[in-house]
Amino acid sequence: MGLNFSFATASQILFGNHSLEKVPGLVSKMGNKILLVTGKNTERAEVLIKLLPTEMEITGFKIESEPSTVMIEQGAKIARENNCEMVVGFGGGSVIDGAKAIAALASNEGELMDYLEVIGKGKALERAPLPSIAIPTTSGTGAEVTKNSVIKSLEHNVKVSLRSDLMYPNVAVVDPVLTYSLSPKLTASTGVDALTHLLETFVSNQSNPFIDMICREGLYRISRSLVKAYKNGNDEQARTDMAMASMWGGMALANVKLGAVHGFAGPMGGMFSIPHGEICACLMAAVIQINIEVLTEQGQNIEKFTELAKILTGSDLAKAEDAIVWADNLIGELKIPSLSQFGLTENDFPELIQKAKVSSSMKGNPVELNDEQLRWILDKSF
Amino acid sequence: MGLNFSFATASQILFGNHSLEKVPGLVSKMGNKILLVTGKNTERAEVLIKLLPTEMEITGFKIESEPSTVMIEQGAKIARENNCEMVVGFGGGSVIDGAKAIAALASNEGELMDYLEVIGKGKALERAPLPSIAIPTTSGTGAEVTKNSVIKSLEHNVKVSLRSDLMYPNVAVVDPVLTYSLSPKLTASTGVDALTHLLETFVSNQSNPFIDMICREGLYRISRSLVKAYKNGNDEQARTDMAMASMWGGMALANVKLGAVHGFAGPMGGMFSIPHGEICACLMAAVIQINIEVLTEQGQNIEKFTELAKILTGSDLAKAEDAIVWADNLIGELKIPSLSQFGLTENDFPELIQKAKVSSSMKGNPVELNDEQLRWILDKSF
Repeated sequence: MGLNFSFATASQILFGNHSLEKVPGLVSKMGNKILLVTGKNTERAEVLIKLLPTEMEITGFKIESEPSTVMIEQGAKIARENNCEMVVGFGGGSVIDGAKAIAALASNEGELMDYLEVIGKGKALERAPLPSIAIPTTSGTGAEVTKNSVIKSLEHNVKVSLRSDLMYPNVAVVDPVLTYSLSPKLTASTGVDALTHLLETFVSNQSNPFIDMICREGLYRISRSLVKAYKNGNDEQARTDMAMASMWGGMALANVKLGAVHGFAGPMGGMFSIPHGEICACLMAAVIQINIEVLTEQGQNIEKFTELAKILTGSDLAKAEDAIVWADNLIGELKIPSLSQFGLTENDFPELIQKAKVSSSMKGNPVELNDEQLRWILDKSF
Repeated sequence: MGLNFSFATASQILFGNHSLEKVPGLVSKMGNKILLVTGKNTERAEVLIKLLPTEMEITGFKIESEPSTVMIEQGAKIARENNCEMVVGFGGGSVIDGAKAIAALASNEGELMDYLEVIGKGKALERAPLPSIAIPTTSGTGAEVTKNSVIKSLEHNVKVSLRSDLMYPNVAVVDPVLTYSLSPKLTASTGVDALTHLLETFVSNQSNPFIDMICREGLYRISRSLVKAYKNGNDEQARTDMAMASMWGGMALANVKLGAVHGFAGPMGGMFSIPHGEICACLMAAVIQINIEVLTEQGQNIEKFTELAKILTGSDLAKAEDAIVWADNLIGELKIPSLSQFGLTENDFPELIQKAKVSSSMKGNPVELNDEQLRWILDKSF
């Protein structure tokens, strides 16, 4: 834990039930022509469209499933052709990520590959993206307050980021009411994504007091509300807790690197069609366990894990290891399927380990893990 | 306490010992011509000037004591005449406030009075201010992360704000090392300013969970470190705590209204030449006391004050009233002079009460106070 840190987030955050109603006032300051990015079910966005002034010219663009390089290129082309002055993303993490990437590419010259990490040229954006408003309808990625978009390249069979300090949305509108209709299954997988963001940044070797306090509050809210929201989607307090914690997870991960859960989740999501949150769920307990064990073996401090266990279990007497049990129990309660059900086999482990080792997230893991230890995580999570 | 809130802060925050060294990299992204706003002792800024690339064209501008309307007009004129591309403020709260106001006025047409609250036309800024970097050398106002500048009008004998969502500095560089040389007297008065920002926003009728968590952490750090920093300016941990808490106080007050301490401090600072922090110090205990009493009389919840007392005293057994005793003791330890020593007399009370009642800060006070109760605060603080 250092006392040197940097922090940035969306320029403005509006949080709360019915904060969606403030969107018309926001867009009218930005212009008249909107690119509205939604998920495949555009009916969901009717609640927003009805609110917008009739003189607004709305061009719709759908992100079905996860955003791909082709979709982002298409979206940016449509935004340019229609002279869109702003991009509004209304949907889950994939939609928000898509909207952010489209906003960035629309105002910059060249192709997406010029700017993509890993598989592209990784150039810095030259111009600020089109102004954007991010309106999440799930409580998971926190993409409304992050500066990257995760994009799938079908050609390279990998997920990579478009990332820039310029990519924070201008406004994040987080309205818990929009998540009430989320199915229990999606509530569970997106909720665990938010949980692992907070959990990994809290124990990250890059953590700092500002992020720590965000994580403590977020972890506490998830520990008391994720199962409640899963069991009763209309539980107002639980939905509010999850929306807030998800946003805080995004704030944390935009400023501090994650850890081994996300180190594996990136490559695994590129190679297999498994929901990101379910991957995180399957890996979480094993990653906590190996980190505690290796830190202990090396005679290093496990205080952060002890605090984590206390927050998650709600017991001041909890020991670090109780976080493992808590995570295992949670996954059981949320009925998350195991990785083997998605077609992953032991033959894939060597490739996964090699890709995870060089991932950006892995750099935040509290302790360096060798191939054998990374293999143990997969064996244990399988 | 509501669950609806908005949040905004400086676009980027760099915190930590020697974070000043990152400034050259920041300015070179913004251009070549800097307006460097400092306090009257320009030698203090040598540490920054030495770091800047030699090809930078630096125009200096001094804010001696508090920024006045005349100074801001002058500074903006100089920035325009020299085609400055950015404004860097290096100094205490007055300097940072001055730099922010100059950056705002330099890029907007018309006069300062067009945009000032209360005594001016209060027009919204039409254009974004010049890009700015705020580098505080005191731990007090948190102006590096706020969206307003407090400006004195000598003509109207009042302090008013220039305020805009566009006025958050682009980068806040908070380097605790810059505060080591601050005198004990200034450490005390600026530190109490930061304390009252956190204290008033924590109990504010506009508080929210995000601001609450910032306040808790900030109050805890001030409770353990203000007296230490006062007694030993080179105490690294104490200076770091104070710099962080000050920044958090700024974040809080930019998003939530304050209370009666600042309700009085604005008019009092306009009418008398008393350091802002010392005014806050003198009023703090009495304001806590009257708020607890009136809330209790009205059968309202005083839980927030109980929590405040627990944080400040470090005792889980503390009662709300213990915050009053703690505040009184602190002022004694910091040897803050009383208000009567600055020439304030009882004859000034009616005017002060009338001005305080209509101040923006007073709207955040946890309970509405009548004239008699406001008068009691002044009597008690005198």
